[in-house]
Amino acid sequence: MRATGRPTLAGVAERAGVSLKTASRVLNGEPNVADGTREKVRLAAAALGFRRNAVAADLARGGASRLLGFISGDIANPFYSAVAGGIERVAREHGLHLITTSCEEDPARERLLTEELLERRVRGLVVTPTPAGHDHLAGELAAGTRLVFADRPAAGLAADSVVIDNPGGVRAAVRHLTAHGHRRIAFVGDNPEVWTFRERRAAFAGAMSDAGAPGAERWVRPGAHDAGTARALVTDLLTAPEPPTAILAENNRVTEGALRALRAVPGGDDVALVGFDDFPLADLLGVTVVAYDAAELGRRAADLVVTPGPAASSPRTETVPTRLIPRGTGERRPRA
Amino acid sequence: MRATGRPTLAGVAERAGVSLKTASRVLNGEPNVADGTREKVRLAAAALGFRRNAVAADLARGGASRLLGFISGDIANPFYSAVAGGIERVAREHGLHLITTSCEEDPARERLLTEELLERRVRGLVVTPTPAGHDHLAGELAAGTRLVFADRPAAGLAADSVVIDNPGGVRAAVRHLTAHGHRRIAFVGDNPEVWTFRERRAAFAGAMSDAGAPGAERWVRPGAHDAGTARALVTDLLTAPEPPTAILAENNRVTEGALRALRAVPGGDDVALVGFDDFPLADLLGVTVVAYDAAELGRRAADLVVTPGPAASSPRTETVPTRLIPRGTGERRPRA
Repeated sequence: MRATGRPTLAGVAERAGVSLKTASRVLNGEPNVADGTREKVRLAAAALGFRRNAVAADLARGGASRLLGFISGDIANPFYSAVAGGIERVAREHGLHLITTSCEEDPARERLLTEELLERRVRGLVVTPTPAGHDHLAGELAAGTRLVFADRPAAGLAADSVVIDNPGGVRAAVRHLTAHGHRRIAFVGDNPEVWTFRERRAAFAGAMSDAGAPGAERWVRPGAHDAGTARALVTDLLTAPEPPTAILAENNRVTEGALRALRAVPGGDDVALVGFDDFPLADLLGVTVVAYDAAELGRRAADLVVTPGPAASSPRTETVPTRLIPRGTGERRPRA
Repeated sequence: MRATGRPTLAGVAERAGVSLKTASRVLNGEPNVADGTREKVRLAAAALGFRRNAVAADLARGGASRLLGFISGDIANPFYSAVAGGIERVAREHGLHLITTSCEEDPARERLLTEELLERRVRGLVVTPTPAGHDHLAGELAAGTRLVFADRPAAGLAADSVVIDNPGGVRAAVRHLTAHGHRRIAFVGDNPEVWTFRERRAAFAGAMSDAGAPGAERWVRPGAHDAGTARALVTDLLTAPEPPTAILAENNRVTEGALRALRAVPGGDDVALVGFDDFPLADLLGVTVVAYDAAELGRRAADLVVTPGPAASSPRTETVPTRLIPRGTGERRPRA
C-alpha cells in the first residue's frame, strides 16, 4: 500500500555523491565521518524522504531489536491490560518498547504470532499460553531466545513462568465461605481446558473436602467464557430445586455475570459471592474478591525476560500471592 | 541476549550442499525447486535451528509486512482495549496482525514509537495522538504510508481521522441535567491540552449558555488525570460554600473519582452525575453516561487504514455517534 519507488540507500548515496558505505555509516549514526559529508548525506536523505531500515540495522548489530513482545489471551480483558502495564514498566527501565498482540485463546493463532514476533527479532517474549503444546519452541529456548510464560506455564515445555497462587486463593475463598456457614457452594468457571481453570477447580474440590463437604464436583459449572454465559449458568443454578447458597466465580467475567444473575433472580441478594480476580469498582459494588497484583505478574515476567537464568535446563517458576478482600457479598450467611 | 553463533542461511546452504540462492528459495516457499533438494534444505534448517527472517522476506516482497500497528495513549485504560479490539477485528478480516503499543501521552515517546513501527514496515498505523505537532509525518503521508488518527485528529497535519461526537455528547448531557432542574453544573476533566478536553469544554460552555446559564467557565475543573485526582477535585467542589448540584465527568476515570467522592461526602448521594464514556458495570452502579461504541471507533480507523482514500490532499474525518443512557445518577434533581 506504499507508493512504489521508495527511496533507497543507493539513491541517497548517489544524490550526496558519496559511497554506499559512507551513506550507511552516517544514517546509522556511526562515528568517523567528516561533518561536511555527514551533512550532505542527511540533506540527501531528507530530500528523498529516505527512512533508515531499523530492522536491518538491528540485524547488523547482532539480531536483537529494542522490542519486547507480549502475546495475551484477550485484547479486551482488563486483566491483560494490567499485566501489560507491568511488563511495560520493566521494558522502559531497560530502554525497550513493549508491543502487545493477542491470540484470543486460539492455539493456531498463538503459534503464528509467536513465529511472527520471533522472526522480527524481538528481544524477548512474554506469552500467556493457550492449552496447546509448546514443544515446537524447544529449539528456540535452547538457542537462547528469551521466552517467559505468564499466568499459565507452557504445556510440554520446560520454560520460565510466573503464575498466580491459584490453590492458595481458592482455598482462602472456600474457607471464608464455609466459615460463614455455607456448604452448598457452586464453582462457576471458564474453559475447562485452560490451566488456570484446572488448578482452581482442583483446589476447590480439595478445600471443600477438607471443610467436610466432599463431592463438591457436582457443584462445578464450566464453560462460562463471557459474562452472558456466566449469568445464564448462575441463573440455572439458583432456580434449580436445590440451589447453592454461595457462588465462587472463577474469574472477573464470571463474577460480572454472577452479579447480574444475583440481581435478577428473586432472593439472589441472599446468595453469597466471592470472585477470583479483583476488578475496577468492585469496592463500590461491595463484591468480595480474591485479589492479586496483575501488574506485578507482568513485572516479574518481564524481569525474567531481561534477566537470563542460570541454565535453560532449570527453568524458573515464580508465584504471585493472593489475598481475600471482604466487601459484603462474601459475608452473606445462608438463610436458616 | 541470544546465544552467539545463530545459524545463518549460508550455514544451512553449506550443510545441505546447495547454493545460497537455492536455500533461500526453499525457505521462502518459492516454486521450481526439486523435491529432494527442498527436503535436504529443510532438514538442514531444522537441524541447525535456522529461522527465516520475516522482515527481510517482507522487504524483498516490496516492503510491507502483515502487521498493523496501534499506538494508544494509556496501556491500562479499558477504553483503548475496546478500541484495539475493534482494530483487531478488521485487521483479521484482512489477514493482518495487530500489534499495539502505548505512548502514555508523552509526545517524545509517541514520536519514537511511530518511527520504530514505521521503520519496521508495518502495513499501516492507527495513532491516538498526543497534543504535540505531527507535521514531521507529512513526508510519510505523501509517500503513501497508511496513517490514521483515532479519538483525536493530528495537530498540524492533514490526515485521516475518526473521532467521537464530543459536542453532541456533551450537549445531550447538559440538556439532560438542565431538564432535571440543574443550573450549577461542574465540568471536571483531564489534561486541558488534550484535544478531546478542549472540544468537550467548549461544548459545555456553549450548551450552558444555550440553557440560559452563561459564565459556566467558572465551573470547569481541569487536571483530573486519574481517579484519585478527580475524587479530590470533586470533593473540593462539593465542600465549597456554593457547591454544584450536578457533575459532568469528562471521561471514565473522572467518573470513577466523582463516584467515590459522592459516596464519601455528606449529601453526595443527592448530587447528580453524568459521565462521558460508558464503562463495565456502570449499569449495576446506576451511573448515567454518554455512551458510544469504542470498538466501532477502532473498526472505522482500521477501515480507513486498509482502504486508501481518493487523495492524500483531502483527508477523511469520520465521527462516531454518542447516546445518553439514563441509569439513575443523572436523574437526581437538585434539593429545593
